[in-house]
Amino acid sequence: MSNDWKTEISSSGEDAVIRGEKLEKVMDMDFSDSIWLLLKGEKPTEEESEIFKAILSGSIDHGVGNPSTVSARTVQSGGNDMNTSVAAGIMALGDSHGGAIEEGMKILQSEKSAEEIVEEYLESGEKIPGLGHKVYSEKDPRTEKILEKADSLGLSGRYVEKMKDIQEAFADEKVRLVMNVDGGIAAVMSDMDWDPELGKGFFIIARTPGLVAHVREEMDRPDFRREDGEYTGEQ
Amino acid sequence: MSNDWKTEISSSGEDAVIRGEKLEKVMDMDFSDSIWLLLKGEKPTEEESEIFKAILSGSIDHGVGNPSTVSARTVQSGGNDMNTSVAAGIMALGDSHGGAIEEGMKILQSEKSAEEIVEEYLESGEKIPGLGHKVYSEKDPRTEKILEKADSLGLSGRYVEKMKDIQEAFADEKVRLVMNVDGGIAAVMSDMDWDPELGKGFFIIARTPGLVAHVREEMDRPDFRREDGEYTGEQ
Amino acid sequence: MSNDWKTEISSSGEDAVIRGEKLEKVMDMDFSDSIWLLLKGEKPTEEESEIFKAILSGSIDHGVGNPSTVSARTVQSGGNDMNTSVAAGIMALGDSHGGAIEEGMKILQSEKSAEEIVEEYLESGEKIPGLGHKVYSEKDPRTEKILEKADSLGLSGRYVEKMKDIQEAFADEKVRLVMNVDGGIAAVMSDMDWDPELGKGFFIIARTPGLVAHVREEMDRPDFRREDGEYTGEQ
Amino acid sequence: MSNDWKTEISSSGEDAVIRGEKLEKVMDMDFSDSIWLLLKGEKPTEEESEIFKAILSGSIDHGVGNPSTVSARTVQSGGNDMNTSVAAGIMALGDSHGGAIEEGMKILQSEKSAEEIVEEYLESGEKIPGLGHKVYSEKDPRTEKILEKADSLGLSGRYVEKMKDIQEAFADEKVRLVMNVDGGIAAVMSDMDWDPELGKGFFIIARTPGLVAHVREEMDRPDFRREDGEYTGEQ
Repeated sequence: MSNDWKTEISSSGEDAVIRGEKLEKVMDMDFSDSIWLLLKGEKPTEEESEIFKAILSGSIDHGVGNPSTVSARTVQSGGNDMNTSVAAGIMALGDSHGGAIEEGMKILQSEKSAEEIVEEYLESGEKIPGLGHKVYSEKDPRTEKILEKADSLGLSGRYVEKMKDIQEAFADEKVRLVMNVDGGIAAVMSDMDWDPELGKGFFIIARTPGLVAHVREEMDRPDFRREDGEYTGEQ
Repeated sequence: MSNDWKTEISSSGEDAVIRGEKLEKVMDMDFSDSIWLLLKGEKPTEEESEIFKAILSGSIDHGVGNPSTVSARTVQSGGNDMNTSVAAGIMALGDSHGGAIEEGMKILQSEKSAEEIVEEYLESGEKIPGLGHKVYSEKDPRTEKILEKADSLGLSGRYVEKMKDIQEAFADEKVRLVMNVDGGIAAVMSDMDWDPELGKGFFIIARTPGLVAHVREEMDRPDFRREDGEYTGEQ
Repeated sequence: MSNDWKTEISSSGEDAVIRGEKLEKVMDMDFSDSIWLLLKGEKPTEEESEIFKAILSGSIDHGVGNPSTVSARTVQSGGNDMNTSVAAGIMALGDSHGGAIEEGMKILQSEKSAEEIVEEYLESGEKIPGLGHKVYSEKDPRTEKILEKADSLGLSGRYVEKMKDIQEAFADEKVRLVMNVDGGIAAVMSDMDWDPELGKGFFIIARTPGLVAHVREEMDRPDFRREDGEYTGEQ
Repeated sequence: MSNDWKTEISSSGEDAVIRGEKLEKVMDMDFSDSIWLLLKGEKPTEEESEIFKAILSGSIDHGVGNPSTVSARTVQSGGNDMNTSVAAGIMALGDSHGGAIEEGMKILQSEKSAEEIVEEYLESGEKIPGLGHKVYSEKDPRTEKILEKADSLGLSGRYVEKMKDIQEAFADEKVRLVMNVDGGIAAVMSDMDWDPELGKGFFIIARTPGLVAHVREEMDRPDFRREDGEYTGEQ
């Protein structure tokens, strides 16, 4: 029953390494390249490095009012430190909040065709991950940017195609929806051979700086966060 | 009592910005530069950019067995998703785990002299943040690297000096201790005019990728993590 | 997009109520009866009250070394307060840790027969919730106690029967397994008409005191919790 | 460096005990009595049992809109399970939210006189824990109830007196404030010889059922919780 804390990721102490690379060497790498090395076990090519930083930087923050900023700031206002408050923000990133990248990678990398995928979602009534946006109806500029970069860097492949096929198949059945940024990221990350199980993980990595910024801002607002509540039960 | 979710950090939607910079422009920035912009409200100089990525990459992971990896992996093994498990790792980063950067920045940026600081810590019996290492006795290679980079980039200033003064003052009173990597980071970040209240924050940002990697690795180990426990109370 | 914090559970202030009952009146109730009222919206009968306190008290703590105590104590040792540390323990209570009550209630309250349930689990290779124990092979004394109490209080019904049928059906197919305490609780709670979605919830309620006790004990152990770790990756 | 998971609290398995009491015997106890045994290491007297259940039941829930319900429900709405969502609620219970019981117990059990305590708080400008209420100006009915019960059960002692002295000393210096329920609980728990370090702990225990109820209610509201946010930074 004794435990077994073994890892292939990194070591500490005098010969500290990250995936076999000496930590001192890692300190000369771009932070996004270190993240790639750490998660994928190898260094990115120059092209992969280029698009990965666009993906991370583009997800770094996105206004206040969404569940993760609200929970992070609310927990801070209860009188808590940075680590506890940021953690509460990350906890909010469940299946419905930032989950479309991971779900998108899963359907793209499945054996199912674009048509089969659309059919399944139409049957279930669920939203197709990667399609639709509440503001953009024609084009999502972030998706455009990621897809253009991927094209010009020679990184677009079968999964970008499959994502477009899903968009077409849905347009044939129902209506044309914009490919949103989650769809673009899911497709490009899949073309770079990333594991779907890390889809939520790199969104968390990208968004943590935003949560740190929001918690820091909240620290300067001394008041306790209290919302108007209403009791609708029996008296 | 109505709430007030205002922020100076970012906006979402069609004109999404990060600290006034259009999100599409931010997507062209290095991830570490975006983090700097987001937290400090302005872009780093080339030199600042250089040292900031060394600091982030150098803290990205550090083996398994420390409280944050243990709690993240243990929570995953209880049958939890990426977001909950990573959050449990970040929660472990309390005052005693990764807290020396923030505490170091606070004492460096205080009005107290190096001698006064050493005296206070000697009286309290607490460890001085930034001094001492369980493995390195002469030099911590990561600190050396950060200080050399800071020197060659012209970023070393009064706080690096003050950290060295603290080291000297402690050597005069007790024993010479190595300046550890937290001490080096605290000094250089202070010389770049960073707010101590963000000290824990950028350690969290730097370490989150490591926690994602550990949680992903744990997912491939199906067993429930159970430690040997012993009851020592009355029967 | 404005929010809507309405609840049928309780109100605060001068006329504070819990499910329509004045808070001052609730203060005269047993704590377990208050929990019942709060979660179910009505007071328990005397018999229900009797068995509910046995269920809660019997789940209050269960040694050290399981994921929830390990994560709670590890987070405390990183230098964290009671609330953050207890939360880390609760987070560990995922699908594989304390989840059998909820899963058991779901299968019991499903339309499927005992035989169909056993067949499905045999096919999937998963463990049947409520059956089997690593120590007890004949009888789990806690299950015995709960079932006897339920019988003598007239609370045993179709779901206790169905749980026994599942045990029989599995014995016919494979081997006789003891009905464990999760199985007993799932059956009795179902016979008292509880919602399976609350199965994990009342385990959390029952176990929180245990986590508070463990975190308090850990506070008296000043050392940082560090496990032996080993790097098995490439050098 | 190997770890040491020893506890005086409980054991698991065939001879499972809670503080030396067999778990099967504990199953015959009131849930609040089990909590007392678990945290204090001995069973309560009949009088202590009586007041303890009033304290726990009286703190079980208190409307929606406070930080702990908002963070629990917001995290659930992000697509999370019961354990993660309840944990987020508990995390919000920091120094400013439910912290007055612990702080009150600390000042009461300190060596300082009522006058010294009032003076210190007046100097610091902080609120005195246990005094003042936004709704009640004359009497807080929950405090009245707890103090009357304590009196009639013979449990009022020096700390209830000291809390009243603090109230008087503050009235002499500034204004008469109502003794709120946190003050009443802090005083009575102190008179029953409870450790201030458990003050936040028993508030967490008492409030966890409320958080479970709120998360369950939120599960029936499918919409993502999004607040109106406004960007006030530079364009």
